[in-house]
Amino acid sequence: MAEFSYDNAILKKAILEMQDVRSDKTCHLTQVKKERVMTQEMDHIGIIGAGSMGLNMSLLFADHDIRVSVFDVSGKNIDQLHDLLESDEKQRKFVTGYKELKDFMNSFKGEKTLLLSLTHGKPVDEVLSKLREYLKKGDTIIDGGNEWYLETERRQKEMKDIGVGYIGTGVSGGYQSARRGPSLSPGGDRVAYDKVKHLLEKIAARDGDAPCVDYVGVGGSGHYVKMVHNGIEQGMLSITSEAHEIMKSVLGFSHERIARTFTEWNSHGPLRNNFLVRICGEIAARKDDKDKFIVDVIEDRVVQDSDASEGTGVWTVKEAGERHVPCPTITSAHFLRTASAHRDDREKIHEQWKKIRDEPKQTIEAPERIVELLESAVHAGFLASFIQGMNLVAQASIDFGWKLHLPTILKVWRNGCIIEAEYINQVLSEAFADQSKGSEPLRHVATSPRIAQEINDSYSALRRIVLIALHQDAHVPALSASLEYFKYEASLHLPTAFMEAQLDYFGGHSYDLVSEDNLKIEKGHHHTEWKKP
Amino acid sequence: MAEFSYDNAILKKAILEMQDVRSDKTCHLTQVKKERVMTQEMDHIGIIGAGSMGLNMSLLFADHDIRVSVFDVSGKNIDQLHDLLESDEKQRKFVTGYKELKDFMNSFKGEKTLLLSLTHGKPVDEVLSKLREYLKKGDTIIDGGNEWYLETERRQKEMKDIGVGYIGTGVSGGYQSARRGPSLSPGGDRVAYDKVKHLLEKIAARDGDAPCVDYVGVGGSGHYVKMVHNGIEQGMLSITSEAHEIMKSVLGFSHERIARTFTEWNSHGPLRNNFLVRICGEIAARKDDKDKFIVDVIEDRVVQDSDASEGTGVWTVKEAGERHVPCPTITSAHFLRTASAHRDDREKIHEQWKKIRDEPKQTIEAPERIVELLESAVHAGFLASFIQGMNLVAQASIDFGWKLHLPTILKVWRNGCIIEAEYINQVLSEAFADQSKGSEPLRHVATSPRIAQEINDSYSALRRIVLIALHQDAHVPALSASLEYFKYEASLHLPTAFMEAQLDYFGGHSYDLVSEDNLKIEKGHHHTEWKKP
Repeated sequence: MAEFSYDNAILKKAILEMQDVRSDKTCHLTQVKKERVMTQEMDHIGIIGAGSMGLNMSLLFADHDIRVSVFDVSGKNIDQLHDLLESDEKQRKFVTGYKELKDFMNSFKGEKTLLLSLTHGKPVDEVLSKLREYLKKGDTIIDGGNEWYLETERRQKEMKDIGVGYIGTGVSGGYQSARRGPSLSPGGDRVAYDKVKHLLEKIAARDGDAPCVDYVGVGGSGHYVKMVHNGIEQGMLSITSEAHEIMKSVLGFSHERIARTFTEWNSHGPLRNNFLVRICGEIAARKDDKDKFIVDVIEDRVVQDSDASEGTGVWTVKEAGERHVPCPTITSAHFLRTASAHRDDREKIHEQWKKIRDEPKQTIEAPERIVELLESAVHAGFLASFIQGMNLVAQASIDFGWKLHLPTILKVWRNGCIIEAEYINQVLSEAFADQSKGSEPLRHVATSPRIAQEINDSYSALRRIVLIALHQDAHVPALSASLEYFKYEASLHLPTAFMEAQLDYFGGHSYDLVSEDNLKIEKGHHHTEWKKP
Repeated sequence: MAEFSYDNAILKKAILEMQDVRSDKTCHLTQVKKERVMTQEMDHIGIIGAGSMGLNMSLLFADHDIRVSVFDVSGKNIDQLHDLLESDEKQRKFVTGYKELKDFMNSFKGEKTLLLSLTHGKPVDEVLSKLREYLKKGDTIIDGGNEWYLETERRQKEMKDIGVGYIGTGVSGGYQSARRGPSLSPGGDRVAYDKVKHLLEKIAARDGDAPCVDYVGVGGSGHYVKMVHNGIEQGMLSITSEAHEIMKSVLGFSHERIARTFTEWNSHGPLRNNFLVRICGEIAARKDDKDKFIVDVIEDRVVQDSDASEGTGVWTVKEAGERHVPCPTITSAHFLRTASAHRDDREKIHEQWKKIRDEPKQTIEAPERIVELLESAVHAGFLASFIQGMNLVAQASIDFGWKLHLPTILKVWRNGCIIEAEYINQVLSEAFADQSKGSEPLRHVATSPRIAQEINDSYSALRRIVLIALHQDAHVPALSASLEYFKYEASLHLPTAFMEAQLDYFGGHSYDLVSEDNLKIEKGHHHTEWKKP
């Protein structure tokens, strides 16, 4: 069985360190009440999969006086848990690790709540098949891994047949949030959710007093929303990485200046309190123990899409196709990652395509002004990522009749998650404020005037930054895709008129006329025999 | 049951006109031997689905003295066929239309060969279920529609159980080629293919003496190759349409000059004998009967992806995700199409995003020089489309063990199909000449030196054209995606190094070091606790 895991020694060190940083600003845990007495009636949750996410969540539940049983097919992971528990009496009292599934399952009395923290796909089915003999009507399973929403819906049906509630939930924020309070997007049967709601609300990140968890909708919608979260994240990761390259290679900034710039962006304006921008500031000037900047020595390969351990980026691309929702920023970012994985191919191509970067570089004047433009361009790229992702959520909601409430999803994303973005979240919340619960969302979220205003304010900067980058052969796949996206979404004169003529020429696809003002998605009404006899 | 169809009157006129243009240069039919006597032993094929493709192919088979029975659930389509046959004694002798499936099936003696010309998905399953009572061991079905390759493989298994051979074949070239000679990419059981090979070779387009048909491979590989053909086509359609806009809006060319330019490009150099470039020349200056340029009055909406009547573009996007093969040119082109379909959304956004196009336009000097650059940029965009498509074919071949022979696929595409492109086909054929039959193709086709040379020669032009277009707010989603694609595929310093740091920060994904020179697609070996305590 695969798990969320990385090197044990690293993990242990990380988790121990995190124990000491609970005062972090993104962490709003209520103070642990140490005096609370353990009783049979206390809350009890089972966690299956003690990789970095499952293990951290088990400690987080314990912080909230919830009894936790932990099982992992890898005995090593349980040993590691026990090592960790040695240093903390409270945790030891609340958390117990099990190497045998039978012992784990026998630790529960009454209805069971089990949280799966596993790699998507086969590992989940393997665990479910082993669990079956122990499951009873009324039990609830929460799949907290990333999962393809149709797999979740299949399992929901299978579990319903034996009376077991099955929730698919996004758990966002990475391993630090899993320890301090993640953002959660649960979906599935409402009755099942209501049973576990209090547990999830206890551990979720907080936006003020509000927990960053809420019921998203029926079926696989919770996992769908998490998939889109990760798609937006891919877009934002590319945008920030492209901005880093522009500062480094085009503006010639030092590592320290790049770090300061990200940190400053994060302190005010449209990029304020933006999680990814904040960590960019921390990463950019970080040195290793040989006093080298770490970003200079890291290999430029992202492999977790290509080794299939990460599914969400691939799924978002597939869904963009399936739902007919243009997601060029997210897709371009994803393709950059997948291309990066094969450095062997790039080495061969680099050797061949020597001329590609042989043009003289332009001298850049007034870098201060360009940094301002870049901040605005990054905001525009983030907006593009969010608009495309929200459009995907909206279209899926309409296609499946999910009636997803966009303000609720934004609430869940307000803290604890990777795409935490105070300003954009506020803009989008204002844009969608009108959506009543139980109604379907706006099909194309960018038709909202509030969002339009943001694009208006940042479009020119985005264009100038892309132009500057192209002059210097800097990589801007996601920034330039965002630029083209805004341009065509706002245009009434697309090159697709000429494309229609071509399709009609060879395919007899037929077209409509400008004068007809027909807006229906239906076959056109005119055909020309273009080929000259 | 849906069919490939458009307005009957238009179709009839088109087909009658085509009867007169058999001397067309792309048509190399052997002369019909009128004296051949009809006997029981003569070749006989059944065509199910008399839309524009099926109907034209029935006439084409008849040209080659092959007896054709035609069935369509729509009696109207059969009436139309009979109307057409009235004007041609020879065709009347060879082709018979049936409105009842029973009569159609009873028209065959011995083993049957049935060609399906239907819309993908449910219509095919409906027909197959009705056929079952008539099918006998040894019969062969050829699905000549576009189809998702996994559906084809499912049907192949179902038909194998009753001893019926099932071929999934691409039929490319649109309705004109269906009448004059299409490009065919059949895949499935080899024994079944060998039974129908002589029929397909008779009707296929020709490159010199060689028919543009050959056995592609097992399973759904024939339909897969056709899907990729259409993906490449989407890329090329966008590239040509973007070039059209640049000539029209940026260079201010007249319709006639645009038409002349396309036609000239098509006469020599890298765009010579390129089908799409040729038809662009014919389309650009074509007027309607009110003396208006047709391209000026066509609505800019491509709806056939959004109404799901066209599947191949959507499938290519999904496969690009699934196989981890970057296809940004194809995907960007596809997203432009899907965005174009919703003109209602674009109208709303246009109204809001008023500032997007408010920048002053730059004066363009030396348009002649820019037209030269544009020719080269179009070539680069076409190359990007082909490289991405061939990489998809190669990866699918490796993933499924299909051992697809790229030179064979290029041979099939040499004439009769929409992506007919003499020069690029020649470049790719040289690049892949080393692949022996029965081996897997090169994983990343652009690592071939022959292809590298072409990119070297056109990259600078592509960049300059994108820069000029961006200055003028012209739409270049596929051209700019191609530029970024070439840039990152040839780079050893991608922004993904910084992305790795971000992923490691919050996800503990771990990274490798530049100094380690590890090229394996596997989890990295280093992690930093980036967050400052």
